[in-house]
Amino acid sequence: MPNISIKGQTMPPSPIRKLVPYAEAAKKQGKKVYHLNIGQPDIETPKEVFDAMRNIDFKVLEYSHSAGIESYRKKLAENYKSKYRIDIDFSQLMITTGGSEALSFAMMSCMNPGDEIIIPEPFYANYNGFACAADVKIVPVTAVIETGFALPAISEFEKRITPGTKAILICNPNNPTGYLYSEEELIELKNLVIKYDLFLFVDEVYRDFCYDGRKHFSVLNIVGLEKNVVVIDSVSKRFSMCGARVGCIISRNAELMNTMLKFAQARLSPPTFGQVASEAALKVADNYFEAINAEYISRRNLLVDGLSKIEGVTCPNPGGAFYTIAKLPIDDSDKFCQWLLESFSFNNETIMLAPATGFYSTAGKGKQEVRIAYVLNKSDLNNAIQCLSEALKIYPGKTLSKSKASAIG
Amino acid sequence: MPNISIKGQTMPPSPIRKLVPYAEAAKKQGKKVYHLNIGQPDIETPKEVFDAMRNIDFKVLEYSHSAGIESYRKKLAENYKSKYRIDIDFSQLMITTGGSEALSFAMMSCMNPGDEIIIPEPFYANYNGFACAADVKIVPVTAVIETGFALPAISEFEKRITPGTKAILICNPNNPTGYLYSEEELIELKNLVIKYDLFLFVDEVYRDFCYDGRKHFSVLNIVGLEKNVVVIDSVSKRFSMCGARVGCIISRNAELMNTMLKFAQARLSPPTFGQVASEAALKVADNYFEAINAEYISRRNLLVDGLSKIEGVTCPNPGGAFYTIAKLPIDDSDKFCQWLLESFSFNNETIMLAPATGFYSTAGKGKQEVRIAYVLNKSDLNNAIQCLSEALKIYPGKTLSKSKASAIG
Repeated sequence: MPNISIKGQTMPPSPIRKLVPYAEAAKKQGKKVYHLNIGQPDIETPKEVFDAMRNIDFKVLEYSHSAGIESYRKKLAENYKSKYRIDIDFSQLMITTGGSEALSFAMMSCMNPGDEIIIPEPFYANYNGFACAADVKIVPVTAVIETGFALPAISEFEKRITPGTKAILICNPNNPTGYLYSEEELIELKNLVIKYDLFLFVDEVYRDFCYDGRKHFSVLNIVGLEKNVVVIDSVSKRFSMCGARVGCIISRNAELMNTMLKFAQARLSPPTFGQVASEAALKVADNYFEAINAEYISRRNLLVDGLSKIEGVTCPNPGGAFYTIAKLPIDDSDKFCQWLLESFSFNNETIMLAPATGFYSTAGKGKQEVRIAYVLNKSDLNNAIQCLSEALKIYPGKTLSKSKASAIG
Repeated sequence: MPNISIKGQTMPPSPIRKLVPYAEAAKKQGKKVYHLNIGQPDIETPKEVFDAMRNIDFKVLEYSHSAGIESYRKKLAENYKSKYRIDIDFSQLMITTGGSEALSFAMMSCMNPGDEIIIPEPFYANYNGFACAADVKIVPVTAVIETGFALPAISEFEKRITPGTKAILICNPNNPTGYLYSEEELIELKNLVIKYDLFLFVDEVYRDFCYDGRKHFSVLNIVGLEKNVVVIDSVSKRFSMCGARVGCIISRNAELMNTMLKFAQARLSPPTFGQVASEAALKVADNYFEAINAEYISRRNLLVDGLSKIEGVTCPNPGGAFYTIAKLPIDDSDKFCQWLLESFSFNNETIMLAPATGFYSTAGKGKQEVRIAYVLNKSDLNNAIQCLSEALKIYPGKTLSKSKASAIG
């Protein structure tokens, strides 16, 4: 038979999804599995979305414009202005099939095969997949749990810049760490980006989820970066409509927008139902996010408090999004996460976590860390924390006696 | 500012969509534009689709499985068996975001940068875009209007095979030519594919549109090609639901399916609403396609008859899909199609056609040809043909006096 391509062989399986068969097997055995492994919120999708689906009055489900439905693009541009004070014209944004496609378009339009993109690690694991598909090389700069995963020193970025460096990518607030970058950190990045004439890709899909009174600062509001900045956005998390597959890419660089439109034309259009739904979601009340953020804050507090009571566990207090990276007293997070599904249960329940190894590009990093998404209601979250606590008591690869001395906090 | 990538510069604009700004300008001037340029059928989407949207009873619009919703995959596999006598298990098909994504996954999973794929030209223009994105080289083998765009001689394919050849791609029935490949033609391809150990990608998205009593023969039913064949499918044309962005990729090569799943995982999932809608569309009555095909046949007859009455125009009689490539007495189809929108009107109406140049990979080919999609009702189609007839009388670049001697038919 003909061979699979090298790219196909190299393409990493999703670390978030690769344990799915074990979870399915656990469920078939009758175990309840708490899913803390994936950013699939349990928050109800706005009623406006389903109303829009009920009220569809067209007879033919047509392609939309390749850049998205114009009325949606215009309303979205207005929404950026009124809600986030981001002043963009609708021609500076294009609707994509999820944030995933937005990042693929950006990479393919800005980077040649072999070009380098610097990303603070741990980072959203699927960036590896998009980079592999685009033949782009990820150069990691490691953020550490001791600082809560703050932006590494700019000198660390600068050390990694080569003639092949073409872009820097950050996610703000961060998936998987929950870290919310400050305006000061972003201005430091600006200076570097200008100095070396780089693109700055910023994944802002968690923009609405900022806690403890802190505000999100968008790179779109940094003057002087108009040609360099590309923002990736999505309705998936904002309106709890992951299945819509509707994202958005924003840039004031007209040449880049024209280039990305060619990629958009090749795949014809983003999903029409999802766009109609996303346009309707913009009608939610102004206080929509207040109640949701209050809920996420109370979940985060429950999680961070609960984890910090487990011996040997370290967990920073995330400032945004709905993830945290926790350090556990274990030998190997991949083994541990599989063991949780295959060999462990407590009250016939178990948990599914994402091994942090998949979020690091540097081999060997993240072996004691897991990503936890706090996307469950507090009662389930409590049970899940108890499961983890019990599991760590009996996991054969626990390292508590060895790691205790070096544990933080 | 940082440079656009070479890939971004090379990426071809869609020849089907690049004239859109001229069409928009024409409409703003008050002209009616008949769209024969894009395969957007006017056939109503099945009622079952909108009913399914009205009856949605979930509260959270979640991601689906990366390979698609299992119930849909299972029903689709049953549908292949009962309706097309194609015996596949649901694990041998994966739901994609349109046929577009299916072909991208296939190319990236099977082909390395620089590998060659042989495609009979004229071919669906967006194959160029997918090949560019995957860094794959298209090697064309020219089909000619004199044979109605039948499969070129196998010796012509064989001449083009090099150590870099990895796959052959055909579309059956063909977009843009409407040619329906016979079982005999496909068996010839089989022998070549086996001899050189190639992948055979077949785009079967028009499978349901075969005319004059002829039946579609799927490459999935060729014994001995289980590891080589990859079929691309989509609900877009079948159920007139282009905007759903739901396609499908089918292969009995398990290693390849596992590889493509990794690409699918990186983008998380295909659109949930579209999948729910597509599952509902499978409930259409058995005779659903009969009435639609009768309508397409009568449109095709009207178009082919009408075109053949225009002096200097040649048009084969397509056996499937809803396109034809017509040869016109013009100097340059790109200029002509733009002129139709910018400078021509008849009864304040004009037509939008797709220049065939974008469907050829060989430079200079297709300059006298256009692709016409017969996706309008017969009254509109009649008006459109009259527009074309009038336009050809006065187009400044008409070549009738020169081309008459060599005109066919």
